[in-house]
Amino acid sequence: MRYHSGMSSLRPWSEVERLLASGDVHGKLSIDDLPTPALCVDLDGLTANINKMAAFAKSKGRALRPHGKSHKCGEIARRCIAAGAVGACAAKISEAEVFAQQGIESILVTTAMVGRYRIERAVKLAALIPDLILVVEDAQNATDLNDAAHAAKLTLSVALDLNVSYRTGVASGAPAIALAEHIVQLPHLSLKGIQAYAGHASHVVGFDARIAANHQAMLPAVETRRALEAKGIPCPWLSGASTGTYNIDSDIDGITELQPGSYLFMDLDYNRIGGTSGTVYDDFANSLTVLTTVNSKPNAHSAILDAGIKASASDRPFPPIVKGIPGTAYSFSGDEHGSLALEGEGRAIQLGDRLELVIAHCDPTVNLYDRIFVTSGQQVEAVWTIDARGKIE
Amino acid sequence: MRYHSGMSSLRPWSEVERLLASGDVHGKLSIDDLPTPALCVDLDGLTANINKMAAFAKSKGRALRPHGKSHKCGEIARRCIAAGAVGACAAKISEAEVFAQQGIESILVTTAMVGRYRIERAVKLAALIPDLILVVEDAQNATDLNDAAHAAKLTLSVALDLNVSYRTGVASGAPAIALAEHIVQLPHLSLKGIQAYAGHASHVVGFDARIAANHQAMLPAVETRRALEAKGIPCPWLSGASTGTYNIDSDIDGITELQPGSYLFMDLDYNRIGGTSGTVYDDFANSLTVLTTVNSKPNAHSAILDAGIKASASDRPFPPIVKGIPGTAYSFSGDEHGSLALEGEGRAIQLGDRLELVIAHCDPTVNLYDRIFVTSGQQVEAVWTIDARGKIE
Repeated sequence: MRYHSGMSSLRPWSEVERLLASGDVHGKLSIDDLPTPALCVDLDGLTANINKMAAFAKSKGRALRPHGKSHKCGEIARRCIAAGAVGACAAKISEAEVFAQQGIESILVTTAMVGRYRIERAVKLAALIPDLILVVEDAQNATDLNDAAHAAKLTLSVALDLNVSYRTGVASGAPAIALAEHIVQLPHLSLKGIQAYAGHASHVVGFDARIAANHQAMLPAVETRRALEAKGIPCPWLSGASTGTYNIDSDIDGITELQPGSYLFMDLDYNRIGGTSGTVYDDFANSLTVLTTVNSKPNAHSAILDAGIKASASDRPFPPIVKGIPGTAYSFSGDEHGSLALEGEGRAIQLGDRLELVIAHCDPTVNLYDRIFVTSGQQVEAVWTIDARGKIE
Repeated sequence: MRYHSGMSSLRPWSEVERLLASGDVHGKLSIDDLPTPALCVDLDGLTANINKMAAFAKSKGRALRPHGKSHKCGEIARRCIAAGAVGACAAKISEAEVFAQQGIESILVTTAMVGRYRIERAVKLAALIPDLILVVEDAQNATDLNDAAHAAKLTLSVALDLNVSYRTGVASGAPAIALAEHIVQLPHLSLKGIQAYAGHASHVVGFDARIAANHQAMLPAVETRRALEAKGIPCPWLSGASTGTYNIDSDIDGITELQPGSYLFMDLDYNRIGGTSGTVYDDFANSLTVLTTVNSKPNAHSAILDAGIKASASDRPFPPIVKGIPGTAYSFSGDEHGSLALEGEGRAIQLGDRLELVIAHCDPTVNLYDRIFVTSGQQVEAVWTIDARGKIE
């Protein structure tokens, strides 16, 4: 889709600014009125994604806890819960604090509380929302958490962070069991179960290859859960799955909860991994775009956009694409600009035109913006705050 | 430098939080107290960089207008001006608005005002700070600016954005002269001169190669300035130069103003281009770091940090490095984490250790943070707001 505007916006800026500040935009604001670069989400696409994943998890008898690191938005977390999710994940304690302020009552923080201030903040948050789940990979860290919980006169719900991939966590099998045995001795910790996030498996290209990688990663987690229960240590909960593996983990006995996040928006990185139906992963709609303006037109075969590295994640080896216009090839052109090489239909693009970019990687793109414009066709339905933008502590 | 902390922070979080909120940190807060990832700037290094560039520009008889897209911080812009800078550059109108709110009275916006809202905002800003300079590359856009200025009963100061690189601007020579002749016919525009930013030259590796690339780019700009004046069109001002070319443009007759930004912080990307004295560009201090914590220690030869793609720019083909600890090799490990491969001395790193990363690319890193901690050794001297963080419209 392409929007001609230049001087043709519907409303003067003073009025747009007032509407944006008030949030009263429904029926009043068009995307042609928006300053660019602007982060946009298609309401129909987002809603379909929320509902499809919720229905899927329900059909498989698994709990759904969408990862808030993708959206960082209280409104989206609440909509997921309204559709059936049990709560939210947060990557960091500062993100969890924001979700709690936004009314989310059940939060799993998916990285460990290392450092005095993290432990203190976690205890404070647990006093506010008792259904806070923390992850642990280290015995001393568990002891520190227990001591802090003791001082605050509460019990912290914890899970083993199991290392089933290339990143964090305690090793499966004996090390995990030893850590669990340590935790159950600590009176102010309550062991809920296991978190096992197979990050490396989530982007394996090809569904069959992804199944293989994911099974190899996750079966030791399921096995560890069984071993714990065989030792009389209750382990009712095992949280895993990403957008790439939601429909693989959902068929593994012993995984009780799915924690995908990117499915809400999708991105080129997930599109390319392939799905059950072919080489393009299209189980969920690409609801997220960055609206951008052609800010310079140096010649017939190129256009310069106002969206560069500060407007869209640039960590992937492939760039954003322009939605709906053949003959356009985007490349980053520094922090403030993007460059479009134009051919065929793309040659019609002019100075002032407004285009939508489908971005390469959703999570770090969303984290660049303070707000997201919720669109339905040309209309702006709402403006939502990215409440936890920048909350990486 | 390396900081052991874990549970050893000096102060409880409630106190740290209170100090950070009040800004009253001098003599009270250590970097061990800071939540991580934290953006830090060494005060001595920053101050030396501010003063060195100001003294250099003065010695060469050039005006200095540091680019605010690098720091986005009112306090830093004010310190540059106190040291002798004539004002600030801003990449976008929303960034300029913030600098004006921060008391900066002379601002050059280095990208053109394309789109109705940009023109309206620019006119509004010019009413607030008369020493606002806008750039133009298109005749219709100039006419639109003139019409808006007419309606607001003011005159806008504009400069030709000259395309001396791979991005924006009108071509040198005849097209630029035609645009200038159009502008001087417009009663509500005042032509100040030329902006010529040779972005491609700024990162050419090797000082001699950089001189050659920069001369090839900038000599047509100087020539265009002379041609305008030969036609009786006054062109007293020519703004150029980056951190990579400040000491090249400074010796080109006809360039009146330097607009570098990254020199305030430096980054690995600039270090690697080489300087007058050798293969490492070290004219300015690497004042910027990201403080990070070892949040997971899966085995003896690796450590997982709490700083990933959301904590540091990842657009360059080389990763951040750990300051002062040999035997550490950082790689991004997703949005929330970094991975350190450890050898030799690096093997001593433990869970909870706090390390400083020297980052690959300063501008988009700074843009990820709401605040920057100003440090002197272990002490936190101040906390400055990144006022224009996210202002990319």
